[in-house]
Amino acid sequence: MDGYNRYTFEEIEVGHKESFKVTVTEEMLDSFRRISGDVNPLHNDEAYAKDKGYPARVAYGMLTASFLSTLAGVYIPGERSLIKETHIKFTKPVFPGDEIEVVGEVEEKHEGFDMIVLKVTMVNGKGEKVLRGKMDVIVRE
Amino acid sequence: MDGYNRYTFEEIEVGHKESFKVTVTEEMLDSFRRISGDVNPLHNDEAYAKDKGYPARVAYGMLTASFLSTLAGVYIPGERSLIKETHIKFTKPVFPGDEIEVVGEVEEKHEGFDMIVLKVTMVNGKGEKVLRGKMDVIVRE
Repeated sequence: MDGYNRYTFEEIEVGHKESFKVTVTEEMLDSFRRISGDVNPLHNDEAYAKDKGYPARVAYGMLTASFLSTLAGVYIPGERSLIKETHIKFTKPVFPGDEIEVVGEVEEKHEGFDMIVLKVTMVNGKGEKVLRGKMDVIVRE
Repeated sequence: MDGYNRYTFEEIEVGHKESFKVTVTEEMLDSFRRISGDVNPLHNDEAYAKDKGYPARVAYGMLTASFLSTLAGVYIPGERSLIKETHIKFTKPVFPGDEIEVVGEVEEKHEGFDMIVLKVTMVNGKGEKVLRGKMDVIVRE
């Protein structure tokens, strides 16, 4: 997407779904390490990760979770997004090269709070769910 | 910290606490935008953020949450960390220049699953809680 959506609270209905795809890269892991300071070898040392039975460096769970920021801040609701709360489960490891489909569906609308509850899922290229959860998002005026 | 802790499940006790401090910078916001693709103006356009009543660009909530990766992957348990689930609430906005103290305390140990439950909090320089939540972390063998 070029830019971002600008849905208002009134324009959003229960069942509204938005999705996008993103490919995780080694450069993303390196950038995430520099931001977070998480030098854990599982995410940074390919030989270490292989020794532990993984095919490659494992993507940080919280890096995968960062795409939820984009889901809310760019797609639904877009500009007016303020993430209030999130509850996520990491169900499968993600590796550099994986193309992830990020999906958000409006499950509830809380009138009076201008809050939407998104059901979020991320699926890899093999159709495996790698993340699932919920996100409470305020839709600013 | 130089490197990372290497606590085993057996070595960790309920009440074990670890913490560190980190200063959020504009460069972190820019890097996070490049990783996530979240071009939302609240985080990227100072004039826009000020027009909405904030003193500066607002840090992405999921960027602040990325320090939870470091809490688990570097501090508690460190090397053997595998984050399984996280439930977080964003309680105050974070801005570039804010020094955040990230604190994790072991609240439960689930024997048989080698899982610890961390109570997590982040506090800014004014002593205000900016994030609180829980994180379920598997301690790998």
